[in-house]
Amino acid sequence: MSLLAIGSVAFDAIETPFGKTDKIIGGAGTFISLSSSYFKTPVNLVAVVGEDFPQEYIELLQNKGIDTTGLQIKQGEKSFFWAGRYHNNMNSRDTLVTELNVLANFDPIVPAEYQDCEYLMLGNLTPAVQKTVIERLANRPKLIVMDTMNFWMDIAMDDLKAVLQMIDVLCINDEEARQLSGEYSLRVAAKKILGMGSKTLIIKKGEHGALLFQGDKLFFCPALPLEEVFDPTGAGDTFVGGFIGYLAKTDDISFENMKRAIVYGSAMASFCVEKFGTERLIDLTYEELLSRVQEFKELAGFEV
Amino acid sequence: MSLLAIGSVAFDAIETPFGKTDKIIGGAGTFISLSSSYFKTPVNLVAVVGEDFPQEYIELLQNKGIDTTGLQIKQGEKSFFWAGRYHNNMNSRDTLVTELNVLANFDPIVPAEYQDCEYLMLGNLTPAVQKTVIERLANRPKLIVMDTMNFWMDIAMDDLKAVLQMIDVLCINDEEARQLSGEYSLRVAAKKILGMGSKTLIIKKGEHGALLFQGDKLFFCPALPLEEVFDPTGAGDTFVGGFIGYLAKTDDISFENMKRAIVYGSAMASFCVEKFGTERLIDLTYEELLSRVQEFKELAGFEV
Repeated sequence: MSLLAIGSVAFDAIETPFGKTDKIIGGAGTFISLSSSYFKTPVNLVAVVGEDFPQEYIELLQNKGIDTTGLQIKQGEKSFFWAGRYHNNMNSRDTLVTELNVLANFDPIVPAEYQDCEYLMLGNLTPAVQKTVIERLANRPKLIVMDTMNFWMDIAMDDLKAVLQMIDVLCINDEEARQLSGEYSLRVAAKKILGMGSKTLIIKKGEHGALLFQGDKLFFCPALPLEEVFDPTGAGDTFVGGFIGYLAKTDDISFENMKRAIVYGSAMASFCVEKFGTERLIDLTYEELLSRVQEFKELAGFEV
Repeated sequence: MSLLAIGSVAFDAIETPFGKTDKIIGGAGTFISLSSSYFKTPVNLVAVVGEDFPQEYIELLQNKGIDTTGLQIKQGEKSFFWAGRYHNNMNSRDTLVTELNVLANFDPIVPAEYQDCEYLMLGNLTPAVQKTVIERLANRPKLIVMDTMNFWMDIAMDDLKAVLQMIDVLCINDEEARQLSGEYSLRVAAKKILGMGSKTLIIKKGEHGALLFQGDKLFFCPALPLEEVFDPTGAGDTFVGGFIGYLAKTDDISFENMKRAIVYGSAMASFCVEKFGTERLIDLTYEELLSRVQEFKELAGFEV
């Protein structure tokens, strides 16, 4: 029983009020697989990079229990590159550069040894690529979780709606939920979106936590109030990577267990934002994670 | 052992995307005392209105168990009037009219029969008036909770800081916490504000819930995600009225009980926004309240 993750593996250049990085490693596939690897290994990764991507970082992923058989390295090409600048409140950012490079013609080849996939995490990519991965699996996974973004709602809504018919859990942020549904109230938006295919919906609200919807059931997990959010890049991917990683580890897709998975995902995301890029996700220990989950329990727990 | 509340009793005119009201009854003192009255009666009210204030509304307050001996009626004068317009997202509003009228020279007279006050709720008013009420009580109450707003930070910061030295719990919203502390991170802001006098701090985040800080202890209660927020006016006052009402009823000011009080306050606020003004707070039953508190438990509860 394995966990398969697809998503970009890329370079980011980030400016926040706390500082500025040169090109560092980022991408949804990187954050998702690093986060999932704290729960379930191997994490089988399907992604593409150019020849500029550092071999030592691939080895680092491998040392975390990430299988990179499905990571294509395109000779003579360059990796996806994104540069952005966060505003003072860290809640909004400007994209300064987007160079698709190898992502422009990404053909997501699924290695034969990944065919035992039971938990499939479709990180943010073109909906067409996400769909191709589902179609290339001989057996339908037990759980398919999909992340996406407003950009695809703008330019590929039909493709996106087609993938929504094929998945189990959609994970988007509040603004994306409003755009997808045309509704401002997240509760009304969720109802509409749950009518589009997936049985379960997660709405991420960044520093304001996350909502989990399934039928009439509803769960809310706060974000941990932090003294300092250093760099929010990858927090959403880290969150969903922790979510599916926890589900794959426990092999229980009940609503009650999804609530726990949301808490674990939120705990992982709370580490992600403490340092630039993937830095904090690399040196994390499982004991630190468990201790942070307890902090969530203290933060949100009450008896009435 | 009694609960004493001060605050404006006033007229509001409200525009939201859902509709528009003529002058209806509002004011912090009204929302606070109505909300508190679901927990602990009598609620002793100190406030001032003009001769334009309807006698039937005063009787309605009395029927809710609110003692209006301390409600001054100024003949020949007019009640405080506020008019505002909410934007589409309901999170921001423009003030269209503010007519202080009787509030301009409010002398908060505390009737002798209110001197047994053990729980004092200082609703939003000039800090000088809030201070006067504390000074007019022969014995210091067991718990003093204070609400205030950015306006007083702009024009009466020294007075405000003096009152902060005299109270136990400060209740403000996130933007006010940032203004008072000069810090963006609410966790850092809370640390600074807790150094200004009050041992406990509540930061209201509207639709994003509320945070309770005391020493190193931290609790978060979400707002209930609602299909429709009809009119947010008074939600913050209703929240803090429920908070102190629950504490007064249970007569337990431990942190654990304050957590419960925050949940009850949040439940009361979730009713307030369902209709215009005080409408929903008038027809509410205690059974509905208990049932909503259970919704909060289901919304936020998890086992790890």
